[in-house]
Parts: sequence; structure tokens; C-alpha cells
Amino acid sequence: MEIEIATIGGYEEVGRQMTAVRAGTDIVIFDMGLNLSKVLIHDNVQTEGMHSLDLIDMGAIPDDRVMADLEGDVQAIVPTHGHLDHIGAISKLAHRYDAPVVSTPFTSALVEEEFDDEEKFGDANELVTMDPGESMSIGDTGQVELEFVNVTHSIIGAINPVLHTPEGAVVYGLDKRMDHTPVLGDPIDMERFREIGREGEGVLCYIEDCTNANKQGRTPSESVAREHLKDVMYSLEDYDGGIVATTFSSHIARVSSLVEFAKDIGRQPVLLGRSMEKYSGAAERLGFIDFPDDLGMFGYRRSIDQSLERIMEDGKENFLPVVTGHQGEPRAMLTRMARGETNYTLDEGDKVIFSARVIPEPTNEGQRYQAEKLLGMQGARVYSDIHVSGHLCREGHYQMLDALQPQHVIPAHQNMSGFSGYVDLCQDEGYTLGRDLHVTSNGNLIQLVE
Amino acid sequence: MEIEIATIGGYEEVGRQMTAVRAGTDIVIFDMGLNLSKVLIHDNVQTEGMHSLDLIDMGAIPDDRVMADLEGDVQAIVPTHGHLDHIGAISKLAHRYDAPVVSTPFTSALVEEEFDDEEKFGDANELVTMDPGESMSIGDTGQVELEFVNVTHSIIGAINPVLHTPEGAVVYGLDKRMDHTPVLGDPIDMERFREIGREGEGVLCYIEDCTNANKQGRTPSESVAREHLKDVMYSLEDYDGGIVATTFSSHIARVSSLVEFAKDIGRQPVLLGRSMEKYSGAAERLGFIDFPDDLGMFGYRRSIDQSLERIMEDGKENFLPVVTGHQGEPRAMLTRMARGETNYTLDEGDKVIFSARVIPEPTNEGQRYQAEKLLGMQGARVYSDIHVSGHLCREGHYQMLDALQPQHVIPAHQNMSGFSGYVDLCQDEGYTLGRDLHVTSNGNLIQLVE
Amino acid sequence: MEIEIATIGGYEEVGRQMTAVRAGTDIVIFDMGLNLSKVLIHDNVQTEGMHSLDLIDMGAIPDDRVMADLEGDVQAIVPTHGHLDHIGAISKLAHRYDAPVVSTPFTSALVEEEFDDEEKFGDANELVTMDPGESMSIGDTGQVELEFVNVTHSIIGAINPVLHTPEGAVVYGLDKRMDHTPVLGDPIDMERFREIGREGEGVLCYIEDCTNANKQGRTPSESVAREHLKDVMYSLEDYDGGIVATTFSSHIARVSSLVEFAKDIGRQPVLLGRSMEKYSGAAERLGFIDFPDDLGMFGYRRSIDQSLERIMEDGKENFLPVVTGHQGEPRAMLTRMARGETNYTLDEGDKVIFSARVIPEPTNEGQRYQAEKLLGMQGARVYSDIHVSGHLCREGHYQMLDALQPQHVIPAHQNMSGFSGYVDLCQDEGYTLGRDLHVTSNGNLIQLVE
Amino acid sequence: MEIEIATIGGYEEVGRQMTAVRAGTDIVIFDMGLNLSKVLIHDNVQTEGMHSLDLIDMGAIPDDRVMADLEGDVQAIVPTHGHLDHIGAISKLAHRYDAPVVSTPFTSALVEEEFDDEEKFGDANELVTMDPGESMSIGDTGQVELEFVNVTHSIIGAINPVLHTPEGAVVYGLDKRMDHTPVLGDPIDMERFREIGREGEGVLCYIEDCTNANKQGRTPSESVAREHLKDVMYSLEDYDGGIVATTFSSHIARVSSLVEFAKDIGRQPVLLGRSMEKYSGAAERLGFIDFPDDLGMFGYRRSIDQSLERIMEDGKENFLPVVTGHQGEPRAMLTRMARGETNYTLDEGDKVIFSARVIPEPTNEGQRYQAEKLLGMQGARVYSDIHVSGHLCREGHYQMLDALQPQHVIPAHQNMSGFSGYVDLCQDEGYTLGRDLHVTSNGNLIQLVE
Repeated sequence: MEIEIATIGGYEEVGRQMTAVRAGTDIVIFDMGLNLSKVLIHDNVQTEGMHSLDLIDMGAIPDDRVMADLEGDVQAIVPTHGHLDHIGAISKLAHRYDAPVVSTPFTSALVEEEFDDEEKFGDANELVTMDPGESMSIGDTGQVELEFVNVTHSIIGAINPVLHTPEGAVVYGLDKRMDHTPVLGDPIDMERFREIGREGEGVLCYIEDCTNANKQGRTPSESVAREHLKDVMYSLEDYDGGIVATTFSSHIARVSSLVEFAKDIGRQPVLLGRSMEKYSGAAERLGFIDFPDDLGMFGYRRSIDQSLERIMEDGKENFLPVVTGHQGEPRAMLTRMARGETNYTLDEGDKVIFSARVIPEPTNEGQRYQAEKLLGMQGARVYSDIHVSGHLCREGHYQMLDALQPQHVIPAHQNMSGFSGYVDLCQDEGYTLGRDLHVTSNGNLIQLVE
Repeated sequence: MEIEIATIGGYEEVGRQMTAVRAGTDIVIFDMGLNLSKVLIHDNVQTEGMHSLDLIDMGAIPDDRVMADLEGDVQAIVPTHGHLDHIGAISKLAHRYDAPVVSTPFTSALVEEEFDDEEKFGDANELVTMDPGESMSIGDTGQVELEFVNVTHSIIGAINPVLHTPEGAVVYGLDKRMDHTPVLGDPIDMERFREIGREGEGVLCYIEDCTNANKQGRTPSESVAREHLKDVMYSLEDYDGGIVATTFSSHIARVSSLVEFAKDIGRQPVLLGRSMEKYSGAAERLGFIDFPDDLGMFGYRRSIDQSLERIMEDGKENFLPVVTGHQGEPRAMLTRMARGETNYTLDEGDKVIFSARVIPEPTNEGQRYQAEKLLGMQGARVYSDIHVSGHLCREGHYQMLDALQPQHVIPAHQNMSGFSGYVDLCQDEGYTLGRDLHVTSNGNLIQLVE
Repeated sequence: MEIEIATIGGYEEVGRQMTAVRAGTDIVIFDMGLNLSKVLIHDNVQTEGMHSLDLIDMGAIPDDRVMADLEGDVQAIVPTHGHLDHIGAISKLAHRYDAPVVSTPFTSALVEEEFDDEEKFGDANELVTMDPGESMSIGDTGQVELEFVNVTHSIIGAINPVLHTPEGAVVYGLDKRMDHTPVLGDPIDMERFREIGREGEGVLCYIEDCTNANKQGRTPSESVAREHLKDVMYSLEDYDGGIVATTFSSHIARVSSLVEFAKDIGRQPVLLGRSMEKYSGAAERLGFIDFPDDLGMFGYRRSIDQSLERIMEDGKENFLPVVTGHQGEPRAMLTRMARGETNYTLDEGDKVIFSARVIPEPTNEGQRYQAEKLLGMQGARVYSDIHVSGHLCREGHYQMLDALQPQHVIPAHQNMSGFSGYVDLCQDEGYTLGRDLHVTSNGNLIQLVE
Repeated sequence: MEIEIATIGGYEEVGRQMTAVRAGTDIVIFDMGLNLSKVLIHDNVQTEGMHSLDLIDMGAIPDDRVMADLEGDVQAIVPTHGHLDHIGAISKLAHRYDAPVVSTPFTSALVEEEFDDEEKFGDANELVTMDPGESMSIGDTGQVELEFVNVTHSIIGAINPVLHTPEGAVVYGLDKRMDHTPVLGDPIDMERFREIGREGEGVLCYIEDCTNANKQGRTPSESVAREHLKDVMYSLEDYDGGIVATTFSSHIARVSSLVEFAKDIGRQPVLLGRSMEKYSGAAERLGFIDFPDDLGMFGYRRSIDQSLERIMEDGKENFLPVVTGHQGEPRAMLTRMARGETNYTLDEGDKVIFSARVIPEPTNEGQRYQAEKLLGMQGARVYSDIHVSGHLCREGHYQMLDALQPQHVIPAHQNMSGFSGYVDLCQDEGYTLGRDLHVTSNGNLIQLVE
């Protein structure tokens, strides 16, 4: 059976991931993501009403025109998890394909919100959910199967899809950390990866997330971030003023730890901000997390204002607002607090906890720096970098290669400089550039089996 | 009562700490440390047989000639803990003073070893031990008292000495982290610090360890490093080849975690290297730690060789050698392993765990880089930076100022650039340079009460 | 005669410089500068109509309330050169003092423009000009004299004022580079500095610009930047598309080199942007530079638009627009060009020359990065860092100390971290902190002679 | 005619360059270099007596076993210039091939010295010289020709060899800077490159030196370094103590500037150190430079000692020793001076000029740091980084692509991370990975024409 890989997006950048795999005449698409920085560099661009081609020209969403060269039918669109760089283009591109969107329940809920927000295109695609550990048949040959292997990432519901073909398995390895104690949800299913590496024809091809490929060692477990966060929050137990925390809204495990430790030190947690409510609300509705009954979540301006007003009235020493703005985004809650634009007043000595890492890009670093300056001008004390990455570092990559023993490897989710550490590793492990190690770019076709 | 501070060493560098406090006619000396880098930059220098003045000229030990300007009698020499930059000059300088060395039992044991190794001078000073939480009277006035407040650092037996005088307390704040869950030993005694800040005349002067004053946030607890180390070691549970670990020999809590997790993953830990045996041996003899009965500790070349031979014979997959060499020191165990100069053979895929951070100095970084290169040439996989600092970061400094409310502050344990973050903090908190915030250098006298 | 120094502003930051020297009952104020970053961090602040106290509270202008503690009469306000961090607060603060503003002609012209732009306060102070090399008597004692020593900086008309007193000279050393071949204007007058160091009572006090004190070696001459720029521009001689250059508007020597090399490679230079016109216009009116007759300078939006339109019509390959925007300022000419908001179209392969260094502050770096990204999206090729600093590096400081042999030294024009290299140098040269080396902060008085 | 490229060495590192080009049955080898760092990481390795295979195993010299897969006869071995990473393996590998070594006269003289130092193998190959701008026929077909195009680099006699074939030219682009004012020798022959890009079949393949591909802008001309050096040295004209300079021994243009400026400021230059004598001696013998008659060059220990003794006797203020040791190499002249191991005494205030950049590798940075520390302990004042790179930066690469318009591009002289900037540039210019942009590694064959 012919096996061909189309590397559509995310092979020259982090963002706008999209890859298609053709097995015979059946095609499966993995991810349709958005590169938000390509949108934000322009003033006043609203993507909701924009046409796909304009977004493609901006470099914001994958240029899927190479799909025309793939002979076959798209049978499924499979987002691996609910981050925007993996699902943010679905509402712009999926309608072109007569295929369902297949994902885990939490991812599916977020895809549905994407369709709901879309103004230009409707939601033409059926949403199908499948749990980690399960499989479904693809196409009519009876020879191709799609499996979801449970992985751990900084969002719940993350999987690595595996396309089983008569020529071996194609493992799409974006995005994951190798976490055996993930705080929320199941550990990464390394046993299954090892089985896949050894059963049948083994692994024909492994497409790998190179985000941290240049970083040494092992990405720590979420349990390490949790212990770190616990240490910081417990150390503030005696403080009798305001404490504010911020983190990635979609990082439910982290939000859950913040909520729990807030209670432990005698404060009432409150989630504030549109995306805080969106992700945590979805997680709770779907039963992935059971927040305390009295946990407030407020996403709209008026309810947020009321909540902050109540916090100030009741005494801010009794609360932990968990807010958006961990990257210093100019219009996020925390930045507005820092500018004194909300009802919440920061006093000398108040604490701000960034349970997040600064995304290393100068525009972003500038905004974050400015937010911290403004917080400092209000007298706030800042705790930052209480976080672990959601992506494998070098030794995780080493262990994945050892588990899967793939015939071919394709680095993804980075630019050339970001690939370099992974290429070095693969060469040390015996792979050869141009033969079984495929350094490629957006818009290419790689035929593995002819 | 006149109170005067002599800032003798460690006010222009990290290393060779020494400070004297005069209360009336009674003087107490805090620390007598060694700056090892000033020795190592020369080829083939052996300090054991060298005269004090030569070592002073090299900048290796404190220049205590300013002591001649202090009118009074030295009543005690008080090392705060057993690191070389705090006790390494005692055998060269203490004999000049007719006073006992007063320290906690673990520190005292290490001071005794310093005297034993000394070739030029004898051990003229009496060794007196005092436990954290205890006090003793200083001199004959009945007005001056020395108290040991328990603190947490990367070695056991660390205290902050406090000299109580009629004018208020002088708190000597080197070296500490604010750790409420220190894995080994008691948490930092913040309650006592807060009492000292509020009782009697309060705190006249606080001398602070500025090592990390330019770093944001809070230094994590040892329990965070422990969770991190546990995550790394448990993730290697299935590996059936060699694993080697290295850390600071004097860091008994960390060594203890390595020993414990080695057992957890089915490996027999073995401590190898002269300083490994020295510190862990002392800790065990004094009852600070109860290592497993079958734990081997080998400090001499021949016993190390035999141990490694046995490890290779029995199968290195059953052992965890914990060795010296975390900074890539050319003659340490790990570097010799990396050069293939020992009986232990590293194979492709074997793991090396650096439970330590690289000390940021170019000579050192070069050596460590070279050690990793050599390990890589043997096929080893490296995990590094599994560590937390033993020194307060900015928010720890903020909390200490808040607890002690000192009238005067003296930054120490850094150079001018290192002081800068602390000076900024103090100025934000209302201190004024030259009035109650004393940025000084080696060899100065500061008279606080006339 | 009593000599006292008031360190009013710029001793905790770069920006808002202000220092007063009292000799007996006569006071001279050096500089009254603005810290622009403290203004820009707020949204939509217009300083022109603001009151002094509000600007002081923002940290934007010097807090001159310490002047009340200086017993004497202000006889002169002396800005050293025309950069905003030295003259930007004159229109807000000078009116409080009954004294003339004494400066070189070019500086004086720029001070006049500051008064013209001021909306809140009038221009109460007389403007007096004095050339480098000249002196004037201060007060009525006949014992105090003010001298201007010619120095070299990144603007013309820069001097170091020296206050000669019976107790020795007070040399105010902000801002300079030691340039013997400055392209425009006279070399630094080192001979005079050496004389001042040796004549009469010598130098009582030297206040030094520490901007680059942590940088090794010597700041290169403007002639090195000129050779670098020449190399870049000549290498583009054959290019037949658009070339755009940007630099500091006040840097007339650099603008002059750009104009000259443009001609050399067959292009017509045009200066565009409000501050381009302001500084170059003033320099030409005052006879400091003789630009080609056909050099266009356009500062207003409409004339700029017309000029760019003509450039596009005549063929942009025949022009070199020299524009504002070297730091990526969002509203400057170059950034607007990069966003496609002007009549000038950038094509694939067009060249953009940044004859400037990025000011190392995260907000700024973010803006500059974004500007380069936008330029790259238009296909432009970027040449940056074609520049030399206007401030002494370490060896310049060493040579100044050697020339002046001052009794007292006061580091300025930096924060504590920035002072550190200079303090190290002074200590190596025998100065002692707290005795003759005064590390201080904003708002302090230092009495040198009682 | 079949055209095939063998990428033998230097495609995964900087060092041990070697590439073979087969045109039909005729093969030309470009460069045979040494990776010195792979030798130095081992203690006490002497390469002179070592066998090729051992050096290959160490990664020190190219692994030329892939040559067995190239069907044809080696007709010439062509080193591009005389740096060790291009000629350092010739004495170990060239004897395996029955072919002359063809190079420019200066390179040829250095290759001859390599053969003279070799202890294991003889000098089996004929040395043929050819000047820049000349060509020779390769093989018997009359269809293949080898041309030397003059380029500019940090050594004299550098060329880019071009192999003209019926299928187009293969341009081997290592190593060069685009210098139109190179101080010594002719400018780069860009006109010829442009002709080659347009004549006949154009350029089939361009192999490019990516050393600086991640650096923005243009590498400055040697004339900029010269102006910088002049500025530093003239600024020291009045200094009446010792001045010592160091630079790359093979950088004759720089040595020549040092000699000239020494005379200008009234000092007698003297070249000291084995490699100083080797390169400058060769350059003078071959007529590339005409040093002053009284210039001393001393390479052997005894003559160096005598020269330094004479300098100290006559007064070191009259001399400029130009010595080896610009990277802090432990046994070089400057490091020995810094350790006080020579007859030359450094006094407080003496100047040391590093006309070189620190090679950015941690081991090296550590040694250089240590050398500067030792110099500082003697009181020396250090001027460093007075240098320009010998390699193209990004805009040079852009201009080369524009001049040559190659059908295929192969990045070389770096590892994957170093290639990344060049790959980005090529992709922007329309090249596609895997099609006409060949990112490869050591030991591969790329068949361009079948």
C-alpha cells in the first residue's frame, strides 16, 4: 500500500500545525492550527470574519493547497488536543473536506466552540469523539485503523494518533511530555508505544514534536510544578493582603492545583477572564474535574467587575483571583489590574504568581516585562516561572525513539534551528538525513512506500 | 554600648567570608572562609603548607589585618556552617585569636577536619558546640549574648548567629534559604526571627547573603528538588544499564534522596570519592542521617577501584554510584569515568544525573562542558540542573526585612554587581544609602552606635 | 569654602539627570533631564501640559525638593548637551530658579525649542551661551568659576562643565566618549583635563557617566562607525532598488556621513521626520554643518508625503531617505513604512540600514523586533548595529582617572548594577567606598568640604 | 555527464572540511581539514605520529571511506586556503590519492610545512601552484576545468575553486568574506562570480560556508577592523609603559596593520611565537608583504627569551611585542607572560590588545577568561574584540545567491543549528528542501546529474 505524508503546516514554525497521511486512497489529516503571532503583528485584525486565503497569505493558517496533489479521500480530521495551534484553523479549513472531525471529548468540545465563533464559514463537519486507548476503522479497505494513544500535555484530552497500515504504523507524535504522575488524568501510555514499536510491521514513520529538542534532559512531571507551586503558595500562608495568580487558561491541572492550594491557605479561589471560564467550564461540564461547589468562574466584563467588587468589599485577603494575562497580554485581566483599570486594588506587598513561563519571543517578552513593571509600580511582589513545559526534551525524544524504533523520522513543530537538536540525536542513533531522517518544510510530500 | 562591624572578607566576592562584630569590648568573629578559585587559577598550589600572609596576598583567605583597629577581645569565632567559603580559612587564621570556635555539631566536626589537614599551623583553638535554638553569654558584662537561630541551607547544621546587645540584635544572615520543608532537619525558624524583630530594642543591624539578590521570586524548597529528582529517577526505573549520579558532597539531604530513590528503583547506592565519604560519614557518625546498613562509602583510590570492579562484575544495572565531579572538576570521579580512567565502563545509553547546577564562572563552565562532551563521547545520556539553590532570592530577602525590621542593613556575600538587586529592594523599602544601608567593601569598619 | 554635592536625579537610572554643586553660597545646577520610559509606559500621556509634581511622582523628571536643603543661591543651570535625558525637564523645573541657563550654542538652541513646546509653564529663564574652552565667573565672591571643557559625544556641542573653587575643581563628567577623530567638531580636550588635574588644588571631585562602565576596553571613535557605514553603503553601490537609512536624529555627525555616502553611491539623500528636521535644521542654521544645497529636510506629515511621492515617481533607486524609527518606535517613519502606511513601497531585496544600536530594554527590544519582522514581511534586507556608543567604556574611565587624579569620585548615570564596574575600577585604583568613593542615590547631599 | 558530490567532512561541525566533486570519471577533492578541538579534549595527544584511522575515529580528520563509492579518479586535491581546518588533514589523507595538491602559492607553502611536520606518512603528493584568476584542465575529457576565483578571508591566498563542467559550474564557496577593501591583496572578484552565474549553463551547484549564517547584516571589511585597531593604538600613543598585542598568526593583513601602527606611535614591533614566525615568515619570503627591515620575528624559545630580555633592557615603552595566545591557549606566549613565566614583566597600567574575537566554545571561553584574569592580576588593562570575521553574514549569502543564481545549494561548514539561518534564507529565495536545497551530513553522496 502506498504511504505518503504531506507536511502542510508547522514545519517552519511553531504554530499552524497540519499534516496529512495517505494510506492507499484513504487520507487522514492531523491538526489544523493557527499561528496567532502572524495575526497579532497586524493592527486590528479580527480573524473571525476573514477568508481562509487571506489567512493563508498572512501565514496564519496552514496552506493546504498541497492537498490537491494527494490522490485519495480525506476520511477524518484529527486534532490531537485543544490548543489553538492545533485546532485554531479548523473553522477556516475543515469545511473544504467531507470528513468528520475525530477527537477526544474535551478537544471536541473546544472544536465546537471554534465552529460557534466562526462568522465566515458554517460548521459543515460532523464531530466524532473517541477516547484514548480506542480505535476506529478508516476507509473501506479494512486495512487501515486509527488509534488514540493517551499522552500527557499541558491540557487534558491530549492523544497521539496512530494510523495503523499494512506497511506499519504512522505515529503522529505532537504534542506531549512523558509524564508518569500528571496530577490530572492518566499517565502517558508508554507501554502501548512500546507494543506498537514491536508488533506487526513496527513503526513505519514517527512525526515528532521538536519544541524542546535543543534542551537537555527530561521535562519534569506536572507533579514537580505542583510541588513548586505548593511551596510558593504555602510560603504565603501568613500574608494578609492580596494574592493574584495567573496561568494558561487551558491548563486545567494547574488551575486545579491553584484552586486546591488556595483553599489550603484559607483563601477562596475565583476564576476570572473569558478564556478561564471557557476552558475550566468545559472541563467541569464534561466531568474531567470536580471543582468545589463554591468556585466562581466569571468570563464576562460585568460579572468580573461584580466579582472583583465583592472581593474588595469582603477583604481581598480572603481570596485568590486566578486570572488571564500570564504573558502580559495588553488587554488581559492581569495587565488591566496592573494598570489600575479594574475594581481590584493592588497594595504594597501584594503577591502576583505567574504559574507560566514567558514565551521566548521579543514582542511577547516586551509585553510581559511591561506588565511586571506596571505591577511593580503598584508595589506588587512577583513570583514567576512556576511551571513545567508540556513538550519533550532531549531525553524524552531519546526514549521515544527507543520505544518506537521507527523506520523513518520526521521532525516537526519547529523551524530549522529548532529541529537541529533532534537531527543531531537521530544521527547519533543511526538515522541518515535524506534517507530515513526527513528534514522538510511546509507544503512537501514524502512518499515512504511506493 | 559601642557597636562596630568590621567587614573583613566576602564583601567584594563570593568566598572568604569573614565579619567581626564588636559590642563594647567584646568581639565575635563570624566565618573565616576560603576563596578556592583564587587558589586554583595558579598551577600546582597546595594550600595545606602555606603561610597565611601568602594566602592573603593571593586573595584566597580574608585579610584580617583590620582586626588591629578593633578595640576589644575576641571572645568567639563562629562559623555559620561547614562550607569551605565559611570555614576554609579557620586553620590559617583562628590560631591568631585566643578564643574558642563555637558552632553546631556538624560544622564543628568539619572544622576539626580542617585543623587535622593543616600542616603549617596547629589547632590552637578550643572547639565548642552549641545547638540551634540555644544561646550563650559573651564576655563578662552579662549584657551580650550569642544565639543560634536555625536556618535551612544546602548543608545540615546551618544557623544564623544573632548577637544580642543592649543596643539591639546584630543578625548575621549568611547563608540560607527559607525552607519550610527541608527534607532533612528542621524548617527555618521564621517565628524566632519575627520575635527578634519585635522584642527589646529590635534588630540594630542585619548582614545579608546577597548571592541570589538579582533573582526574582522565591528559592524553592529542597522538597521541590526532591520531587524533581524523584521524577527523573523513577522515569529511569526500567533502564537496565548503568546510571551514575553526582551532587554536592556536603549536601546530605540530596545524597539521602539519591540513596532512597536508588533503592526505590531497585539499585544499590554506593558513595564514591574522598569528599563524599567525608561529609556523609560525618553526618552518619553524628546521627544526623541514618543511611541503610548496606550503603557503601569509599573515599580512597584503592577502595573505590575495588568497589567499581565489583559493580562491573555484579552488573552495573544493579547499582547507583553517587560520585564527585558535579562541576566537571578535572580530577574528580565522574570526569575520570568520562575519560575512561576507572574500572566503570559507560555504554551507549547509560545515564548520568547531575543533581547540581553549574557554578556560573567561565573556567568552571569550560570544565563542566568538557566533562559532558567526554561523557557524550562514551554514549552517556545527561540529566542536569536537578537542583535548587541554597540562597534566598528577592522575595526571601523581602520577607526577612519584613520579619526583622532592621535599623541598619549591610549587603554581603557578593560583589557590587551582585549587591545591586538587594540595594534596589532596600531602597524600595525605605532604606537610604550611606545612612542605614551600608554598601561596603573588604577591610572596612562601620560604627553603628558610638 | 564649603563644597556640597546634591545628587538629585539619574543616580538610580539612566535618564532624568540632575546634580547641584554648592560652593560657599553659590550653587550651579548641572542638567535637568527627562526619563522618557517612565512616560511611555502609561497610555496616552502628553507631558507638554503636565505639572512638575505629577511628572516627579511618575519618576519622569528629577525630584528637586532636596534643593531646599542646599543653603545658597542658584547662579546657573548648565545642561551639558542637548539630549532629552539632560535637557528634557528644563521647561518643567528651571522656572523655579532665578538663574540663567548656560550652555553651548547648539544645546541652547535645543533648550529654546523645549521652552517653545512647553504649555504649562512659560520660559522664565535667560539663555546664555558659552563656547567650549571658555569660562565665566559664578557669584560675587570672585573665587568660583565655571569652565566648559570640550568633549565628544553622539551629539554636537557637548561639554563637561568644571566648577573651579578654592578647594579644587568639581568636574561634572556626563556624557562623553574619548574621541580623537570625531568626524564633526573638535576632539576631546584631554590636554585640558590633564592640566586641571595638575593645576592649583587639583580636582576635588569627579562625577562620572557610568553608562558603559561594565564594558571592557575602549569606545571606538566615530571615525570607526563612519568607516563601518562607508563599507556597508559602498557595498550596495550596485543595488538598483530602494535603500532606506535610520539613525539618531540628534547625531549630526552620523547624519552627515549618511548624506555624504549617499552622494558617493549616486543617491540623493532626504531627511524625513519631525526630529530629523529639528536637529539637522538647527545644526545647519547655527553653522555646525554645511549640508549640500539640494538636501531636502521634511518634518511635517504633508511635506513628508509629498517627498515620498516624488521619490517613488522619480525612481526610488535614486534616493536615500534618512528617517526616524531606529528603535522601532510604533509611530516613527520607518515603522510606518514597514506597515505599508506611507507612499514609499518596499520591494523584495530593498535595503534598510539601522545606523544605531538597539537600546537594551525589553519593551524597546520588542518594538524593534516587530519593526524588523514587518520589514522582512515586505522583503526588506536589514543591516543593523552600524554604530558606536557615545559613552566611555572601562579603559576610558581608567584614562580619565589617570588624567584628573580626583580626590573624590561619584558614579552617576546608571543604577547600582551599572555602577558596579566603575566601583571595581576605582577600588583597584585605590579609592575606598564611603571615604572617597561615593556610591549614592537620588536625593542625597554629600558634603565634601565642611 | 554525471555530477556527484560527496560531503565528506565539515557538514556536522566547523572543522575537518572535505568535499569531493565527481564530473564523469574525474574527481576533484576540496579541502582536507583538521578539527583541532577533537584532539585537544584528550590529554597529551600528539597528532604528528598518529595513524589516519585513529584520527578518523576521534572525529579529528574527515572520514574519507565514502570515497570508495565514487566511481572515478581523483585528479586534484584543492585546499582553498591555509587554515588548519582546511589543510590540517592533508598530511594524513592525501597520500592515499595519486593526485597533486593544487593551491595558491601561500597555501602551498603552508601545505609543504604540514608535510614537513608529518612523522607517520611521507609527502607523496606533488604540490602545484595556481594563482587566483587562473584555470587548468582536469582529466582527459577536455570538458572539465578548474578555476580559482579570488576571494577575501582572514588569510592571504584564499580562493573559491570552481569546477566547470558541461552541466554547469560547481562553486565551492568555503571560506570567505565579501571584502572590497581588504588592506592586503585584491578585493573579492564579485564580477567573475556574476559572470559565472550567467555564462554557459550557469551554476549547477553552490556549496556555501554557513559559519555566520545566523548573523544579520554584512561582515565588515578588514578596513573597518584596521580603523578600529588604529583608533585603539593611536589612543595609547602617550602611554609610556608596556603594550602587548596578539592576533591570529595567519592573519597577515592584521599583523601588518599592527606593525604599521606600532611604528606610527613610536614603538618597534617584534613578532614572537612559533606560529607568528611561521606565517609571517612565509608571507614575506613569498613576497606578499614587505615588512620593515628591522622587524624581528622569533619563533624558538631561546630567541624569544633573548628578544624579551633586550626589550626589558632597552625599555619596554619602545616596543610592541606581537605574540601568540589570543584565545588564552595555556602554552602560548601571552598566557605565559600573564603567568609571569617570561622575561617580560607586566606592570600596573600596561596594555594588552586582543585583535581577535573569542571563539565561542565553553572550553575556549574558560581558557581565555583565565588568561584575562591572570593579566588583570598583573595590573594589565585589556582591549579586546578588535576584529572582524572572515566569514559571510546573512546579507553576504544573499548577495552570493543573487550573483550565482545556482540551481542547487548545499550548506556546509556548520552543524544543523548553524545551517538554519542559511536554510531560511534559501527558502525565502525559492529553494525547496530535498529538491534543490540539500541539507546533508558527513559521508553522503548527492547525485545532481544522472
